[in-house]
Amino acid sequence: MIAGVRGAGARGQDGAMNAIPEGYEELLLQPNFGHLATVRPDGDPAVTPMWFEWDGELLRFTHTTRRAKLRNIEHNPHVAVSVLDAAKPYQYLQARCVLESVTPDPTGAFYVKLAERYGMENPAPPPDSADRVIIAVRPFAYSKQ
Amino acid sequence: MIAGVRGAGARGQDGAMNAIPEGYEELLLQPNFGHLATVRPDGDPAVTPMWFEWDGELLRFTHTTRRAKLRNIEHNPHVAVSVLDAAKPYQYLQARCVLESVTPDPTGAFYVKLAERYGMENPAPPPDSADRVIIAVRPFAYSKQ
Repeated sequence: MIAGVRGAGARGQDGAMNAIPEGYEELLLQPNFGHLATVRPDGDPAVTPMWFEWDGELLRFTHTTRRAKLRNIEHNPHVAVSVLDAAKPYQYLQARCVLESVTPDPTGAFYVKLAERYGMENPAPPPDSADRVIIAVRPFAYSKQ
Repeated sequence: MIAGVRGAGARGQDGAMNAIPEGYEELLLQPNFGHLATVRPDGDPAVTPMWFEWDGELLRFTHTTRRAKLRNIEHNPHVAVSVLDAAKPYQYLQARCVLESVTPDPTGAFYVKLAERYGMENPAPPPDSADRVIIAVRPFAYSKQ
């Protein structure tokens, strides 16, 4: 999807835009890492790098039911994702998002799909496939540099 | 400073460690980007990539008084930083930190120091030097992969 089709990039407070800024969707289409920030139940932030997939509407991550990040997201469904291309580090995109769904991935198929996207050769389902879930989040505001 | 000197890496809840895991301080010593997560006054997370400096005790960022991130940190002094080396992306470090100080940098000298660390040649003080500050944060828990 071409970013411009979705809107003229109206700005809200803080200069945030409700559509991907022109030229920045490539950061999501390429296999860059997304640093996913969540808020812990105690109110502190947490952030770790994650694989993701972008379909023009949602960002999807592979995760497991046994980790803190899922607990955080279920407690506070707002997250933020920071994406940088290491080859062009002075252009970045932040997407502020809200949780759309958590879907079981008991065969690890989505993990394998992401592993292939990120360049692993012939990836196998992970040992923790039984606990795997797909976390889908919907961006509602973008900012950039 | 050698990480091992500061403790045996005792673990708290969530597997967090109170000293830098063995072998991971290099991620902070090299000029990798730090994805700095803060919590906005409305409770949502925010995250953007930042230059930083690590002195073995504190992480320091250059920032300005005119941006949302400083407002966030003054509202909630807990932050988190995710650091990845693009050349070895399957090893990362998360440092959860608390604000130590915000210090004026009216000549932009610390901006220039960081610009040099990140490979800019003969960097000049930025146009917004008058508003520049140094944000120093103190890590209290680490997690890794």
